[in-house]
Amino acid sequence: MTFQAGWLRAALLSTTLAFTMAGPVLADRAPDAFKVTDFLLDNGMEVVVIPDHRSPIVTHMVWYKIGSADEPPGKSGIAHFFEHLMFKATTNHAAGEFDRAIADIGGSNNAFTSYDYTAYHETVAPSALEQMMSFEADRMRNLILNDNVIKTERDVILEERRSRIDNNPQAVLDEEVDATLWQNQPYRIPVIGWMQEMQQLNRTDATAFYDKYYRPNNAVLIVAGDIEPETVRALAEKTYGKVARGPDLPPRIRPVEPEQNTKRTVTLSDARVSVPSFSTQWMVPSYHSGKPGEAEALDLLAEILGGGSRSRLYQALVVQQGIASNAGAFFQGTMLDDTSFTVYGAPRGDAKLADVEAAVDAEVARIVRDGVTPSELEKAKDRYVRSMIFARDKQDSMANIYGATLATGGNVQDVQQWPDRIRAVTADQVKAVAARYLVLGRSTTGYLLPQQQAGN
Amino acid sequence: MTFQAGWLRAALLSTTLAFTMAGPVLADRAPDAFKVTDFLLDNGMEVVVIPDHRSPIVTHMVWYKIGSADEPPGKSGIAHFFEHLMFKATTNHAAGEFDRAIADIGGSNNAFTSYDYTAYHETVAPSALEQMMSFEADRMRNLILNDNVIKTERDVILEERRSRIDNNPQAVLDEEVDATLWQNQPYRIPVIGWMQEMQQLNRTDATAFYDKYYRPNNAVLIVAGDIEPETVRALAEKTYGKVARGPDLPPRIRPVEPEQNTKRTVTLSDARVSVPSFSTQWMVPSYHSGKPGEAEALDLLAEILGGGSRSRLYQALVVQQGIASNAGAFFQGTMLDDTSFTVYGAPRGDAKLADVEAAVDAEVARIVRDGVTPSELEKAKDRYVRSMIFARDKQDSMANIYGATLATGGNVQDVQQWPDRIRAVTADQVKAVAARYLVLGRSTTGYLLPQQQAGN
Repeated sequence: MTFQAGWLRAALLSTTLAFTMAGPVLADRAPDAFKVTDFLLDNGMEVVVIPDHRSPIVTHMVWYKIGSADEPPGKSGIAHFFEHLMFKATTNHAAGEFDRAIADIGGSNNAFTSYDYTAYHETVAPSALEQMMSFEADRMRNLILNDNVIKTERDVILEERRSRIDNNPQAVLDEEVDATLWQNQPYRIPVIGWMQEMQQLNRTDATAFYDKYYRPNNAVLIVAGDIEPETVRALAEKTYGKVARGPDLPPRIRPVEPEQNTKRTVTLSDARVSVPSFSTQWMVPSYHSGKPGEAEALDLLAEILGGGSRSRLYQALVVQQGIASNAGAFFQGTMLDDTSFTVYGAPRGDAKLADVEAAVDAEVARIVRDGVTPSELEKAKDRYVRSMIFARDKQDSMANIYGATLATGGNVQDVQQWPDRIRAVTADQVKAVAARYLVLGRSTTGYLLPQQQAGN
Repeated sequence: MTFQAGWLRAALLSTTLAFTMAGPVLADRAPDAFKVTDFLLDNGMEVVVIPDHRSPIVTHMVWYKIGSADEPPGKSGIAHFFEHLMFKATTNHAAGEFDRAIADIGGSNNAFTSYDYTAYHETVAPSALEQMMSFEADRMRNLILNDNVIKTERDVILEERRSRIDNNPQAVLDEEVDATLWQNQPYRIPVIGWMQEMQQLNRTDATAFYDKYYRPNNAVLIVAGDIEPETVRALAEKTYGKVARGPDLPPRIRPVEPEQNTKRTVTLSDARVSVPSFSTQWMVPSYHSGKPGEAEALDLLAEILGGGSRSRLYQALVVQQGIASNAGAFFQGTMLDDTSFTVYGAPRGDAKLADVEAAVDAEVARIVRDGVTPSELEKAKDRYVRSMIFARDKQDSMANIYGATLATGGNVQDVQQWPDRIRAVTADQVKAVAARYLVLGRSTTGYLLPQQQAGN
């Protein structure tokens, strides 16, 4: 029961290659053991089965193609609010019964909401898969949405916002940076919602949302683990297959961002901040919104410029110049609409934030001007392919990759062909996306400063 | 056929008290000659009659309570587009017939669209009033909206956007500043629309918009001039009275702006700019959204701080320090939702923009810290009351004041009691709104720079 936002925080905390969200990752040549099966139920629910027979466990996920960016105006937070409501009573099960059933068999479960999707997942023994499907199919349509449930859970999300956003200067800054970078596209609205709108969410909103989006024809079932596709199909037909198809949903066409002509900054000064930091973002295409090859080139650009300790930014600012405690770059490719490319840094010792920013800008200018070397590019491609080994080793990572791709306009083939597409990227393509998108006069920078630097 | 935006531009061009949009202005004690009558037609259309018998002229305006801030997501520009379409053929009159009829009798006409309303107006001899009403009532419901009309007029608004916004660095900057100041409230969307959305506007959008908003129960008729209220009533019933009432519209409740915690900047560098300039905006309450007295205090604060050549900013920066070619402040009070308070300046001679900004900030800090003097306050009130003389002297100004007030949630009494409410504002109230709203760490500043200062 969490929401995914704060891309910058995630990246600052991560010292490994952030593969889960940085793009789908798969083996060069998938052995048969990893042959993925996908099919549709009669009611339109898509099913993907990822075999993994190394241990007697299955990961069961239902992804709904509904995220915060699909919310009606003035109803921000309803997608995440609804994720909470899905853990309440249905006409067949009391609140908490699903959770207890999972705990009783030593399984685990959770859910998350992002801009483009909402997902529910359980990890259990294969023998419990039918039970999971039965519970999940039940709450797809049979939730009891009364005023008491709404009020109680609304208090929970309001408290979640207070503790996770309002008490955290970085989170407060991130929200206003996002809303400054995105002036029309709905990624400007926080996944958890704006406080004043969350306070107004009501039963009418929740019921309308449920009836519109929680339907089998708006859902993707991912089952990864020690189970055969035909077994999954039989169980899915027996459970989800009984849920009636809903009305067809219109295409997910959202307001589009206008061209950015300006350099924008957002500065938060706060007594709780001890070390200043900055991050600069540019609007770039995603895997779904971009032309063929663009997102792949942006993934490799992010990797070379700022993906971990071998990257240009880390080597220049942290290792060689010694002015930064951290510096890097990342690209958020798995999004339905245009997305962001970010560079960031924080000073070390006596270094000034402005020096760190200037050094980051200089590395950006250099890669825009001179591009990348063949050797850098090959190493970056190799690191991406190797990251697949780690992804495949974690059953839930594979499930996440397929789920996120399918929920943002991609298909199974997109995931499977991704390594080939990464291998095909040329140095010229990487230079081209750097030159086209990383323009310093058309960027959005957030500054997090200690209180004494206020009013700068 | 214009749109109202660019509050900053308007203020920079104006050296007189900007009364039309800065707040309703009326005489302290209106003589009977200015007794205003208002009533409702049976179909819900509101009518206001403002007598003015000095010359044989009437101003006839129809205000629709629909503006760009009411547009559906992804349909920006439809309100202004619709204003253009209203000049096309109806089932009773060919395109241009209305315009020619006005020209034939030596009258004038036009229309404008803003965030909160769209208005159509004609100035003619009293004998032509019935004809004006007849034409206006006809196009309220009988427009012919076919694909050919849509396509032709869409090309016109696209060209209007190119010439008025995209070719004008100040206008490009203003758009991105607005979208940075307003992160949730729809005033962030330009009245003329985002290009990529204007290009998609179609007949379905136009028809839905027309059927929803162009109804007598969503309109205010203002007639000012040499005519009696009973005559207006009889003519209005004979023309507008025959238009069927539309479905009730829901209250105009729009997404609300979250609290701002950051200092934001937006910088445009352009080769066409010769002298740099800046403006800083804060979110403040409007006459409609504020607590009693707040907007009146903000009007007087704007007047004292930066309203014309007697203001503190002008005196300090232009006259005494001689560092600025211009400096001032303004407040946009007549809005349905929260609005903005702006200070601005541009350097003169060798002075730097940063010096001008620092001097403006110092004046803001001083008025926040020390408030205003009783003498300043009285003089500002007097200037407001005197501005009424000019307003009343112009028939269309009075019509505009009533129309804008009634279209943004006010009523006739609000306009009439406004001078008393201005007189009642205390120095403490002015200081209080300055201290509460003009916080430099929570502001949005736009910089327009010559090209050589790019990448600052």
